[in-house]
Parts: sequence; C-alpha cells; structure tokens
Amino acid sequence: MNPVELVLSPRLRVTPFEARVREQGIKSYTVYNRMVLPVNYTDTLDEYQHLCANVQVWDVAAERQVEVVGPDALELVELITPRHIAPCEVGQCVYAPLADQDGLVVNDPIILRLAQDRFWISIADSDVLLWVKGIAYGRGMEVKVFEPDVSPLAVQGPKADDLMADLLGEHVRDIRFFRFIETNIAGTDVVLARSGWSGQGGFEIYLQNSADGLALWDAVWAAGQKYQVRAGSPNLIERLETGLKSYGSDMTHDDHVLECGFERYMHLDKPAAYMARESVQALQQQGVKKRLCHLMVPGNPLPGLRERWPVLENGSVVGFASSCAYSPKHEANLLFAMLSVNVAKPGTSLELEVSGNRCDAIVKDDRWKS
Amino acid sequence: MNPVELVLSPRLRVTPFEARVREQGIKSYTVYNRMVLPVNYTDTLDEYQHLCANVQVWDVAAERQVEVVGPDALELVELITPRHIAPCEVGQCVYAPLADQDGLVVNDPIILRLAQDRFWISIADSDVLLWVKGIAYGRGMEVKVFEPDVSPLAVQGPKADDLMADLLGEHVRDIRFFRFIETNIAGTDVVLARSGWSGQGGFEIYLQNSADGLALWDAVWAAGQKYQVRAGSPNLIERLETGLKSYGSDMTHDDHVLECGFERYMHLDKPAAYMARESVQALQQQGVKKRLCHLMVPGNPLPGLRERWPVLENGSVVGFASSCAYSPKHEANLLFAMLSVNVAKPGTSLELEVSGNRCDAIVKDDRWKS
Repeated sequence: MNPVELVLSPRLRVTPFEARVREQGIKSYTVYNRMVLPVNYTDTLDEYQHLCANVQVWDVAAERQVEVVGPDALELVELITPRHIAPCEVGQCVYAPLADQDGLVVNDPIILRLAQDRFWISIADSDVLLWVKGIAYGRGMEVKVFEPDVSPLAVQGPKADDLMADLLGEHVRDIRFFRFIETNIAGTDVVLARSGWSGQGGFEIYLQNSADGLALWDAVWAAGQKYQVRAGSPNLIERLETGLKSYGSDMTHDDHVLECGFERYMHLDKPAAYMARESVQALQQQGVKKRLCHLMVPGNPLPGLRERWPVLENGSVVGFASSCAYSPKHEANLLFAMLSVNVAKPGTSLELEVSGNRCDAIVKDDRWKS
Repeated sequence: MNPVELVLSPRLRVTPFEARVREQGIKSYTVYNRMVLPVNYTDTLDEYQHLCANVQVWDVAAERQVEVVGPDALELVELITPRHIAPCEVGQCVYAPLADQDGLVVNDPIILRLAQDRFWISIADSDVLLWVKGIAYGRGMEVKVFEPDVSPLAVQGPKADDLMADLLGEHVRDIRFFRFIETNIAGTDVVLARSGWSGQGGFEIYLQNSADGLALWDAVWAAGQKYQVRAGSPNLIERLETGLKSYGSDMTHDDHVLECGFERYMHLDKPAAYMARESVQALQQQGVKKRLCHLMVPGNPLPGLRERWPVLENGSVVGFASSCAYSPKHEANLLFAMLSVNVAKPGTSLELEVSGNRCDAIVKDDRWKS
C-alpha cells in the first residue's frame, strides 16, 4: 500500500502541544476521538528502543476527558461499568470497561476520582460524552456531564521518575501506581498521575488549560535534556509486548464485555446497579462464544495490518487478528485476536492468513507464555 | 506545514469500496466517524472542475447510518431534533439538526424514513449512535437503535442522471429531490436517493451489504465510462460555493442550534416533544450572541486552514473562520465564520487574521451576495 496523506482541518481537533510536535518533526498521525494523535517521528522500532531505555514525552491530548459531577455522579458512573467504583478513593484511578444494556463494550477508560462526587472518564476512541449525556438526560439524573479543557501529556520510560523528580521534587517518586496528585508545573495547574499507555513506567500530566500547553511541554522538555528525552507516542511494539488492547481495533462495540479479557477489572456481583448486569448474567449461563487472545507467529516480520486477518484451524476460520507487531524481545510477531472459545487456549496451534498466504500461529497466555 | 502520513489501522474502519479507491490512486484521506473518507485523487481544483462538468463516484461510506426502529421510533426521532419529523413520508429524506437539552448541536444528519416506525439517521461526524442509545435506554423506550451494515456510494455531477438512467432505466430521472426508492444494482439491494453533499445534483446509493461493495462500484463505474466518470469526494471549493457547512468544523457541540443558520430546517413550535425546546425558548428571549456567516476575502488564494482564524472589527476579535477555499467562480476566498451578531449582517466590512497578517473581509448572505 502506498502511503496516504492526512488532510488536516479544524474538524480533526488541534492539540495544545501541536506546535512542538511539528517542531520535533512528526511524520505520521492517526485520528483518535476526532483529534490528531501523533504516531511516528522516526520509525516504530527506533522509537521502541529509545522508549525502553530512556524517557519520552507524548502528546496524548486525544485521550479526552468526560467530566461527571454532581449528586448523582457516582450512581451514573456505577451504571455504565461492571467495575465497582465506590471503593475507588479520591486521588485514585481505575481501569474500567464500559458496557451498555446489551453488554456491548462502549470504551475502556481510566476513571479518575477527583472528589466524592466528581470523576474524569479518560477515554479511548469513542464518544462516551454523548452516550453518558444521553443516559443522564433519559433518567433525569442530577449531574453535569461535559468535556473539560483537559489534555494529557505523557512522560513514559524508565527515566520518567528521574525527569519528574528533577522537575517537581523527590516526592513524585512516592506517587503509587494509578494514584494522582494535584500540583503545578510552569505556572499551570495539573493533575499528575502515575499511569500511561506503556509498560515502561511513567506519568500522565493532565493539563487543565490549553493555552498553557506549550509552556508545560517546554518545562518537561527542559528537564528531560539530561535524560536524552525525545518526543514519542504510544508504541505499537511496546503495547503488544505489554498486552495493551486498543478499543476500536482489538475490541469494538460488536463485542461483549465478557469476551475481552476484562475479568480482573469487573465485579459482576457489585452492589450498585449497572446497565450490563442482565446481559452479563445471561451470557454467563450460555457461555461466551469468543475470547480476545494473544497469538504468536514465529518467523519474519509480517506486513502492516489494515484489515483484520483471518485465523484458521484445519482450514476453517475461527477468528480474526486485529493488531500485530514484530517483537525484538520475543523474536516473533505478536498479535491480538478474537477467537472462538474452543481454540482460545494457550498452546493451541492455528494458522494465520495474510494476503492469501498462511503461516503457523500459536495461542499464548496474556504474558506471551504458553 | 509539511504533509503528514495517516497511519491506517483497523481502528480507522475500512470501507466496502476501499480497494477501488486505492486502485484509482487515492492520495489523501480524512477520518470521519472513525472510518476513512477519501479526499484527493489529484487536487481540489482539478476535481472541482471535473465535478462541475461531468460525473464522479464518491466513497462516502463514512456517512454512517443509525437505524431507529420500533413502536417508539418516531417519538425518539422527534425528541432529538427541533425539526417536525411526523410529516416526513416514507420514501422521503429530511435534513434535520440534532440538539441536546442545552440546545447544543450534536449532528446535522439527513433522516430517511424507511417505514412508519423505521428511520435511518445518516450522520455527519459524531457518534449519534451512542447518544441515541443512551437516551432510549434512559427513558425506557420501546425501540431498537443500532448501526446497520449500510454504506453510501455517491454519484454526483451534472451527468449523474444520465449515468443512472443508463444503469437502471429512465424512471430514475423522476425521483424527486430528497426522495428515495428501493431497487437493485449488480445483484445487491440498495436504497437510491436523490441527495448528496454537493450542489451539482446526483444520487446517493445506500449499499446494504458490505460484501457487495466492489460489485456496486464496478457497475456504476462501467455505466460512467461514456460520461468520463472519475473517482472523487466531497469537494472543498464546491461545498463553500454551495454553502454546505461541516459539523465539527463550522459548528460543533459548543454551538447552539439557534446560532447555525438552521432556521429553514426547524419547527420550533412543533407539537412533538423535543429535548432542546426549553433552551431554544430561553435563548429566543435573550437573543443569540453569535451566528454562522458567509465571509468573502478578495485577492489571492489563502493558505490551508488548520486552526480557526480570528475575524476582527476595529482590531477586536468578533469571531473565527472555520472553512476556507478559493472560488474560481467568485474569484475570491469564501469562508464560513461564527461571528458576533452585531457584525453578522451582509455587507459588514471586517478583517481576517491569517498567520499574523490581516486582510479585508466582507460578510455575505448565504448565496454569497451582499
């Protein structure tokens, strides 16, 4: 496939960091929540190697927030997820799949609890804002739902702690995983969370005023100079190795919340009401028919994945692969694939079809072991 | 600005026509409803000239449908728009702005009435599906809301009637504006509407089975050979000349439905309940503060618009321009701009600021006259 250009218009929303992203020589973008999301400055392998050894600054403003605030905020947030939210403390974040009354996945955000009655739903790529507004309106709930002017800037990599300690003080090292503090960088108020879309450690800095975006970037950038900081982005190789699924690719609104490997992030018997409960109970009785799996293909790197690739057992299609990257660590191609439950067992030998050619594939557990 | 590449992944959904779009040498894309939307095969001016003289086939699958069907379908569709929907007949389409309980615009779709209790909302770029599902759930309405496998292929240009008459028979010439028939092309059932995102006339063919996308394209393409058919797309120059606004650029979820020039498409006193009624009445009493206008800038073609450009009166910002193209017909730059009501009058002289430079601008009526 020849490369195609992305035509930028105001409809593909500008981020507060875009001028710096341009200055760092961005080569390619994707679009995420109707906003641009940088992909490559050099190439995926080079950026992967740098990320795993150093520290990077990522413009992830496209991870938009949906703010839910008011007396019914907790009730509403409980309603949209099978995860029990009440135990989440102020200052804590939780990963929580969202599901509708048919159990279909709507998104898989991080939810930040800013106050007893105030949440940010930090979303993957779907308009959660409109869905939650619709539910709140339909049920007449006493709550305000809106998209605040909040844009995350991620600092990721093994030297992220050193960078942030230089910038803000040693106390940032004590922020626990999926906890956040409110602080100030370069004169602008931010929420600083230990989180991020990689397994290399680091922080997400939630900018709360777009006009201060370049000042925030510049402060982080200056502190990063002694750590060979570079501009980066969520990295395909790293996310496959770490096992991070992408909503819209690996699971979509066609998939049931029981099929996507969310077990650790759900409390199906939670006391609070949630929309998907009946559907979940019905499917538990019937048993799920497919499951999101890890799949490994030894050999040379596979080409870029545009359309889902069929996965076969004895010549019959048993599922589709939705993400793929060649892993230097495993010296093999890593894939995520939605597979029939009867083959969704680590160790199962299957075939993958790429442009008419078939190659051997093996189901792995979620740590890429069998 | 250097061009940037769009990284294609399954998250940016494939269209049923994509293989043909590639074969025709697509050079650039945008992303619309989380699906790719072709932009340029050659360049905007060349494609504009061809469109205005001949006929083009457009992959507009990204205009997704939200199907609303069931006993409460009409009540639900009435609820989300200030347009009176009950008078819309089966076989008719209407352009209808959608607005929430705060009067904020959610989308500006074409609504097709397929049966008394069955509608397709053919959407611009926002997840209407999730919003409508949320409202229906919250109110416990007896209705099914889903995205069917329906992808429009547009046939646009002055020779569109000749092409379609050759393909289907002379009766297609009798289809009135914004009316549709159900028919079959190349063995696949389609809805054929006289509509489309240009002022050059033509049809939109709603494919109802993705697997038949290439067969449909090929049939239209073959019939178009004697009319110099080319692959095309919604054209920036043509849409400015015709006055077609784009949701997400020219009006967004930050704008009130009374501010966007929808007067002809709303019945604010309609008998059916609609969410925006109270907000509309309140703002009618207060008076709107801004209005979407047509703005003309004489002189040489302006550069591409990435971020909205400020519009000034006596040095003070009075609004922002959101779309711009140089019109060969008017020999001037045409823009859409959201402006303070006090300057939103045809004939008003203003200034436009582009990259620090100011140029003269004049407000025009919606036919580019003053």
